[in-house]
Amino acid sequence: KNRAVLLITCPEDLDVISAVSNCLVYNKASISQLDQHTTDPYEGMLFIRFEIELDPNEKAVNQLKIDLQELAIKYNMNWKLKTDTEIKRMAVFVSKMDQHLLELILRAQTKEIPVEIALVISNHPDLKETVEYYGIPYYHIPITPETKAEAEFKELQLLAEAEVDFIVLSRYMQILSPYFILKYENRIINIHHSLLPAFIGARPYDRAYERGVKFIGATAHYVTSDLDAGPIIHQDVHRVSHRHRAKDLKVIGSHVEKSVLAQAVTLHADDRVIVHENKTIIF
Amino acid sequence: KNRAVLLITCPEDLDVISAVSNCLVYNKASISQLDQHTTDPYEGMLFIRFEIELDPNEKAVNQLKIDLQELAIKYNMNWKLKTDTEIKRMAVFVSKMDQHLLELILRAQTKEIPVEIALVISNHPDLKETVEYYGIPYYHIPITPETKAEAEFKELQLLAEAEVDFIVLSRYMQILSPYFILKYENRIINIHHSLLPAFIGARPYDRAYERGVKFIGATAHYVTSDLDAGPIIHQDVHRVSHRHRAKDLKVIGSHVEKSVLAQAVTLHADDRVIVHENKTIIF
Amino acid sequence: KNRAVLLITCPEDLDVISAVSNCLVYNKASISQLDQHTTDPYEGMLFIRFEIELDPNEKAVNQLKIDLQELAIKYNMNWKLKTDTEIKRMAVFVSKMDQHLLELILRAQTKEIPVEIALVISNHPDLKETVEYYGIPYYHIPITPETKAEAEFKELQLLAEAEVDFIVLSRYMQILSPYFILKYENRIINIHHSLLPAFIGARPYDRAYERGVKFIGATAHYVTSDLDAGPIIHQDVHRVSHRHRAKDLKVIGSHVEKSVLAQAVTLHADDRVIVHENKTIIF
Amino acid sequence: KNRAVLLITCPEDLDVISAVSNCLVYNKASISQLDQHTTDPYEGMLFIRFEIELDPNEKAVNQLKIDLQELAIKYNMNWKLKTDTEIKRMAVFVSKMDQHLLELILRAQTKEIPVEIALVISNHPDLKETVEYYGIPYYHIPITPETKAEAEFKELQLLAEAEVDFIVLSRYMQILSPYFILKYENRIINIHHSLLPAFIGARPYDRAYERGVKFIGATAHYVTSDLDAGPIIHQDVHRVSHRHRAKDLKVIGSHVEKSVLAQAVTLHADDRVIVHENKTIIF
Repeated sequence: KNRAVLLITCPEDLDVISAVSNCLVYNKASISQLDQHTTDPYEGMLFIRFEIELDPNEKAVNQLKIDLQELAIKYNMNWKLKTDTEIKRMAVFVSKMDQHLLELILRAQTKEIPVEIALVISNHPDLKETVEYYGIPYYHIPITPETKAEAEFKELQLLAEAEVDFIVLSRYMQILSPYFILKYENRIINIHHSLLPAFIGARPYDRAYERGVKFIGATAHYVTSDLDAGPIIHQDVHRVSHRHRAKDLKVIGSHVEKSVLAQAVTLHADDRVIVHENKTIIF
Repeated sequence: KNRAVLLITCPEDLDVISAVSNCLVYNKASISQLDQHTTDPYEGMLFIRFEIELDPNEKAVNQLKIDLQELAIKYNMNWKLKTDTEIKRMAVFVSKMDQHLLELILRAQTKEIPVEIALVISNHPDLKETVEYYGIPYYHIPITPETKAEAEFKELQLLAEAEVDFIVLSRYMQILSPYFILKYENRIINIHHSLLPAFIGARPYDRAYERGVKFIGATAHYVTSDLDAGPIIHQDVHRVSHRHRAKDLKVIGSHVEKSVLAQAVTLHADDRVIVHENKTIIF
Repeated sequence: KNRAVLLITCPEDLDVISAVSNCLVYNKASISQLDQHTTDPYEGMLFIRFEIELDPNEKAVNQLKIDLQELAIKYNMNWKLKTDTEIKRMAVFVSKMDQHLLELILRAQTKEIPVEIALVISNHPDLKETVEYYGIPYYHIPITPETKAEAEFKELQLLAEAEVDFIVLSRYMQILSPYFILKYENRIINIHHSLLPAFIGARPYDRAYERGVKFIGATAHYVTSDLDAGPIIHQDVHRVSHRHRAKDLKVIGSHVEKSVLAQAVTLHADDRVIVHENKTIIF
Repeated sequence: KNRAVLLITCPEDLDVISAVSNCLVYNKASISQLDQHTTDPYEGMLFIRFEIELDPNEKAVNQLKIDLQELAIKYNMNWKLKTDTEIKRMAVFVSKMDQHLLELILRAQTKEIPVEIALVISNHPDLKETVEYYGIPYYHIPITPETKAEAEFKELQLLAEAEVDFIVLSRYMQILSPYFILKYENRIINIHHSLLPAFIGARPYDRAYERGVKFIGATAHYVTSDLDAGPIIHQDVHRVSHRHRAKDLKVIGSHVEKSVLAQAVTLHADDRVIVHENKTIIF
């Protein structure tokens, strides 16, 4: 049997869980993990994640989808079924820093992050050799204020051709257009080098140093057109002291960022994240 | 409507979740939180915790119990239903140290721990005044090797009379007999002053100091007749360094212990703990 | 012999450490702990904390002070010598919340915080009984916009009479005047319920909930006339998830705050904090 | 000027700090960081670490060494002076796992760990290509019970020829002989996959899983002939739950190990570790 994940968002209703469970049992899918969250048991929203063991034959999967669609109409339900055979395809956007990218490549290689890295896109040529060493296509697309629209057009074409499911901005130093962001809504993951909402904007470690904080942190979030304000997926922190200079904060922070980004990507690739009103439910 | 918690343990079966969900829907109980865990989706054990909103009238509750019992037979299911009207009654056993006890009393007062402290039992008279100041009955039962059996008999009587649901050993310096432990199986919570299984036995902080560890910790666990080896409910740690003397470790450790014990008691009182083969599932 | 602490701030100079060490040796004071920090070994500021064992007789202490003052002139040195016989006297300002205050009282009782709580001042009468139970004087000074200046005058009088060294704002819901703050510069400790600079201002937990952060925290800082912007003494954090409601964040946060405040007060009372340009050096 | 580190261990004496400080001033060495620890200000041991700015000419360094040696005799002092020009040379012993090794190589490349990786020795040929890609010599020395003594002899020769200062066992699955360990006393760093002293010996993650602990950890320590009992340099932990299977603990643990090992190696390479009676002082 094959593993699959079913994600559901719908308005609270007394019998959604039993209706979906029945549907799964009827289609001979056994539930190996069930996570549920409700914002309010009477008038709130309901979020469910089923990990199921499923007959791998196509006909069975299709029948399940037909049955789920019927429930979707009845309960006003958003749903998504992903089988393990459909491994997600990821694009990484970088500028010149290689550490975060390398961490993602190494974790993808060991299957710790269940993705296929379809391509890497950069506005600089610097990391071409490193990336191609791992057998991943690298596209250098320079960006100037004049060519920005054109460059994004080329990027979107490459992403479409490579059938990319989601994008990771690995210390990518360019701002994406609202149009681009909308095309990949809740499918672009960025890493910000502070524990948002602290130190929104530029130079967070320098500002953390100046403020004399005792913790630095990192935040992985989905990109929205409102800078640094998108839904937070994962965060982590590290204690620091007066002995750490601004450059020490950057080194320590870089390790926190790498780890936070890799974990956020894993959560997304495992279909463990549901976005609702600028917040995430993490199962 | 009233809040209730339903805990279930049974062998894995394809349709348990849908069967129970159906039963709840049929009894007009809406699910506000569902947590599930399986050790193996084919041959493993299945653990479920439902938080439900329930009609408070007795007849409805009884009908639900009857229906659940039917399912229990069919699926070989252990189950427990607790309604919010049945708040748990807790006994605390202490010797002379008051800090952990005080933390429990204060958190129970603010309803952070949803319990009624029914009584405090001690082999010393020292804390009588403190405990009675908070309106809690205090029983001083001295223990010598000769009177131990008799003392335990008296304790069991007091616990039965006070209709105690579970017991907390708050730095209680006596070992309970296997008979006593069996009577309250998985219902006696102890706090051990180390991150078990490190430093099993006596003087853990002194030994931690001697070993030069960089972390100290605390462990709340259910008491079994095998000392310090019962199922672990909660643990926490605190980083230390060469600058901390043995007595500093004791002070820091004491705060970790208080917090770990209070959290473990809250988890137990909320029916968030299922014990299975000397391990806990924490929902 | 008695324990004493010597704190020094001065411009970097090649031979300050040896000069002060010589002075201590000459006065038969042995160094049991030495902490040093420099912002830049050539042109920076130098901070030193000596823990010393000192002859307790007054004449010896006075001679040491005379010798230190000579060095102070030569090296442009700020210095402060505190002997253990001069235990610090602390005032606590509260409104209605008792948890933080109680934590401070209990830790002062067990000598974990080396202070004498000289008095408690509140703009409400609610906590009078609790505070007086522990033998601490309680002054109820109501505050309205019209009486504010007068109230502060009365408070300053009480503080002077009680020979108070420093003040703790334990969830005190009033803003102090710049004049008051200047009188106790770097001697008023406040606890803010967020990991500053995140969520400056009111209702931090509600705003943390709305932003969907994965960590909440607390910050103890010295009060300056610029709200929530004073030098940070201590911070701590606690991981949270989508399952925590706003009110859960408040409960968890409250425990973090208590612990952070108590640790910051201990650091201050132990003369382990030096303030320099809105940042702290913590030894 | 050049940076240098001076480490001192000696019996407590009232005027050691001033004597050494004077010696440094006299030799025009300015102190940029001073850390000190004493086990007991009257009869204990005293540990000091000076970071100093030093004239780089050889004659000045030699004069300082002569002066320090004089003090060493007077105060029964162990001392070690390392200048930044003498960067430490490190050997790594591996078996087949590459992750820890790769982390060390990458951090050495970015100068985060201030070492030169002189060579890698392995009892397997598997990682030859990876290591040589980074321009580091790789020696494959197979080990059987019969050839063990001979293999160690060869290893010691290679280490001597490469002028290696210290050795890192990066998940190296062979036990070194007491003779070998003595040759590099307190200069062989091993990473153990548990929070020692918990789970000493083999298969710690499986045993952690079976015990149902809520934390896993890793420990970097110096190797002694007593297995897993050497002085602890650094530790870290990660919270886990019943949802983590044994294989999940291994993945999470592996990241903790990598980070703990890299930090321990940095501490050692920076001369921040003093070993005293099977414990470490970390400055």
